[in-house]
Amino acid sequence: MARSDVKLIGAWASPFVMRARIALNIKSVGYEFLEETLGSKSQLLLESNPVHKKIPVMIHDGKAICESLVIVEYIDEVWSSGPTILPSDPYDRALARFWAAYLDEKWFPTMRSIATAKEEEAPKALIEQVGEGVMMLEDAFSRCSKGKGFFGGDQIGYLDIAFGSFLGRLRAIEKMNGVKLIDETKTPSLLKWATSFSSHPAVKDVLPETEKLVELAKVLAKFRAASSNS
Amino acid sequence: MARSDVKLIGAWASPFVMRARIALNIKSVGYEFLEETLGSKSQLLLESNPVHKKIPVMIHDGKAICESLVIVEYIDEVWSSGPTILPSDPYDRALARFWAAYLDEKWFPTMRSIATAKEEEAPKALIEQVGEGVMMLEDAFSRCSKGKGFFGGDQIGYLDIAFGSFLGRLRAIEKMNGVKLIDETKTPSLLKWATSFSSHPAVKDVLPETEKLVELAKVLAKFRAASSNS
Repeated sequence: MARSDVKLIGAWASPFVMRARIALNIKSVGYEFLEETLGSKSQLLLESNPVHKKIPVMIHDGKAICESLVIVEYIDEVWSSGPTILPSDPYDRALARFWAAYLDEKWFPTMRSIATAKEEEAPKALIEQVGEGVMMLEDAFSRCSKGKGFFGGDQIGYLDIAFGSFLGRLRAIEKMNGVKLIDETKTPSLLKWATSFSSHPAVKDVLPETEKLVELAKVLAKFRAASSNS
Repeated sequence: MARSDVKLIGAWASPFVMRARIALNIKSVGYEFLEETLGSKSQLLLESNPVHKKIPVMIHDGKAICESLVIVEYIDEVWSSGPTILPSDPYDRALARFWAAYLDEKWFPTMRSIATAKEEEAPKALIEQVGEGVMMLEDAFSRCSKGKGFFGGDQIGYLDIAFGSFLGRLRAIEKMNGVKLIDETKTPSLLKWATSFSSHPAVKDVLPETEKLVELAKVLAKFRAASSNS
């Protein structure tokens, strides 16, 4: 494998950045991690992703690649001799891409809005919606994994990365709201999957601790409260 | 090429459905078009896409594939002996996927909201935003096309399909609001591209006439007005 110059602009808590890191780890590609500071954007980020000005951005031999799922597919295609990330069968690929799009377009926006929900009852309704999404993923798991341990079968694949990157956030929500979204009764397959995924060598060092995410959520909540009072 | 059973659940006016039709045409794949009726959803649609309940859905040998861009990639992968739709170079693929995601996640939602904008000035501001997006695509065109006639180079590719499917809608907005979003001064490359794209054999029979889209927009506006008064 040719030695490449890979930089990743990101932040430790971002699930989207985590996707790129896990994909690079799967392919055993070394990279320089350029951590953004909360509340400001580096000149390199602004220049590399002028359209969205968002992390993650991967810079490979001077070329910027933006959007987490686009980065994961790029990594799979460039380092094609490593373990494959996308399934090989076109229909399985379509299923993985479908669910990844569902997560990003429908499920995560609901999950993200829990933290900023204003009314007393709103978080409860939103958490329920997130739980319904998790149930759908439990159902998708049996179709994608075909009896194996991951959405990708024997090994971590595209949908494992897309969904698994949200596990830290999911656990922080469970902890902060005293609920269980992945459990033995409703989602037994996902419970087992989450344990395998979290302890996988490509994942364990980049998945943030729940406690740290809870702390960050509290800091951000204080920051929002201060901003809305000023 | 093996004979396949392909059905496409769609509607003539939908840009997303058009993407699947153009991709199938490029690959010379015959299909049965199952047209949905405005205002109701068929049982087949509800069963085939229970998550979003939206067109397009392609049913290939009994398997349902949902989400327009997922369908286009699926078509490219299954009928791989036909003209290729995704670029072959991983970075070019990443660029095409990036811009297609931008169109669907940022640009089209703004464009769609023009029709439902309430305040007098709102449509003007939204049209300006859409115009700014078109300017970015003009810039992207030079990087993707590399001096050739299409985003995909010599032939229609992924981003041509993703963006070109909105051309009918764009022209309807131009007509209804007396503006030009693609023109000789601001977007000369896209103006030329739009002409080539619209007259391409895989496109011309599925791209709806501007006049028909304008009529449909008027019908929908009346419907919305009646609903909000009732």
